[in-house]
Amino acid sequence: MANEPKKIIIDTDPGIDDAMAIFLALRSPEVEVIGLTTIYGNVYTTLATRNALHLKEPKLGVTDFVHGADGLGNQNFPPPNGKPIEESAADFLVNQAKANPGQVTVVALGPLTNIALAIQMDPEFAKNIGQIVLLGGSFAVNGNANPAAEANIFGDPEAADVVFISGADVLAVGINITHQVVLSGSDREKLASSKGKFAQYLTGILEVYFAYHFDAYNTNGVYLHDPTTLLAAVDPSLVTCTEGAVRVQTSGITRGLTIFCNKQKRFRETTEWSNMPSVKVAVTVDAPRVVKLVMDRLLS
Amino acid sequence: MANEPKKIIIDTDPGIDDAMAIFLALRSPEVEVIGLTTIYGNVYTTLATRNALHLKEPKLGVTDFVHGADGLGNQNFPPPNGKPIEESAADFLVNQAKANPGQVTVVALGPLTNIALAIQMDPEFAKNIGQIVLLGGSFAVNGNANPAAEANIFGDPEAADVVFISGADVLAVGINITHQVVLSGSDREKLASSKGKFAQYLTGILEVYFAYHFDAYNTNGVYLHDPTTLLAAVDPSLVTCTEGAVRVQTSGITRGLTIFCNKQKRFRETTEWSNMPSVKVAVTVDAPRVVKLVMDRLLS
Repeated sequence: MANEPKKIIIDTDPGIDDAMAIFLALRSPEVEVIGLTTIYGNVYTTLATRNALHLKEPKLGVTDFVHGADGLGNQNFPPPNGKPIEESAADFLVNQAKANPGQVTVVALGPLTNIALAIQMDPEFAKNIGQIVLLGGSFAVNGNANPAAEANIFGDPEAADVVFISGADVLAVGINITHQVVLSGSDREKLASSKGKFAQYLTGILEVYFAYHFDAYNTNGVYLHDPTTLLAAVDPSLVTCTEGAVRVQTSGITRGLTIFCNKQKRFRETTEWSNMPSVKVAVTVDAPRVVKLVMDRLLS
Repeated sequence: MANEPKKIIIDTDPGIDDAMAIFLALRSPEVEVIGLTTIYGNVYTTLATRNALHLKEPKLGVTDFVHGADGLGNQNFPPPNGKPIEESAADFLVNQAKANPGQVTVVALGPLTNIALAIQMDPEFAKNIGQIVLLGGSFAVNGNANPAAEANIFGDPEAADVVFISGADVLAVGINITHQVVLSGSDREKLASSKGKFAQYLTGILEVYFAYHFDAYNTNGVYLHDPTTLLAAVDPSLVTCTEGAVRVQTSGITRGLTIFCNKQKRFRETTEWSNMPSVKVAVTVDAPRVVKLVMDRLLS
């Protein structure tokens, strides 16, 4: 059992750091990538699909201002040879979870539209799916889409609320976690001077991502949002979690905000969090170990 | 100048811990209480006014389930002899600020209705008032009205947003701060065995408040919300602050939520926090020193 790789489906909007996460998954013997599904986020879905295929081939080669207009650092890679399958992402998720009950982990790196559709299409999906490890939320910290909301949740707040109250085994990795995991300029230089094809590929596309971070955060480093989330699925010991209900605000100035209820107070009246299923929310991360894993696997 | 006491107006919904705050103010040579204004919160305004008068006399003698039905621990104190003045709270605030420009500190211990009215009545109020030190918000922690909202802000979210974006010098003391400041059961025993009239009075009314905390938080101690806020006005060195824009969500499941923008990210697009005046938000508190000040002044 310990040697059986964990089946994962990556729902992604590639995306520079999505690209790193996909590469990491392909280099991680602990997991078997049984599918990539795509969702609008960093780029539109058609381009995300093209990019996902491109990454998987992998010659490699999608978020507009964050990731470059083509989502992969404006490198103008040639069109991929692979073809997307006709099945919708939600159908694929439902069918894979049904065929492998309790065995499939979805790593959700973009807005949660596809996952929410799967939950709404099949009442058994939340039970059939092994775990949903998602990059989303800004628990007790400011968001990155605006001061209230993290970008993936902001991309589809209604879908996110559906996922959080679905009863599925959900692990949320928010930017309170991923802002602790930084790939430095010198890490990038190590990638640049290595001969690994992943590393070489990434060196090119990382330039746009570094420039964005310098502009937005005045820092010479990039946050490893998607790689950290992927690795939390590969090795759960990289993070520690708390458990409780999470709800998403869907209107007003804090649309897309996630609020976790910590159960420290017994409220007299029923709240919107009362009687809702608990999810796991990551609260600490072993950032040095995540960065080392990223570097080791990309350099190898 | 250093010996000139700071003029303060306490806007209050007394309230057991409001009572403690009023007592502390009356025992603090650093401040001169030039008025008490009342607002619905722990009890209705008429009863709050009666209680405020009762406290000021002071024989002392208001939040329903938190503070007892009469707001002061169900002690059935005799009616106070003082009479409320006819001037509305907002008028009083406006006039006092105009008469003493930059010299009056409002300590706001309940929902911010009166303060927002003053701001809306007089365009100069925000400039004339020295500082508004308010108990409100749950910055980066769960609320106490529900997981999203702190009770005072939840009591009038629209008013709170008016105050936060008014441009006045605002210091917000949220429950992220006041939940660190706990009066223990043994502190209460010291009050009970002392001969001070404030201490004696409080011993009686604290019983209901301790019972509420045991029920809601399973703890033998009470949070010193209002006393901490009052003391932050008396001695600003008791807290450290951060500065930035605060907005209040006024709809949906997180109505009453406060979101502080920490300015760590430069957002490309204009957000609801952009170009808004900064306020001070307390982020640390010297809790042992606050508790000691409370005890010393109530026992003396």
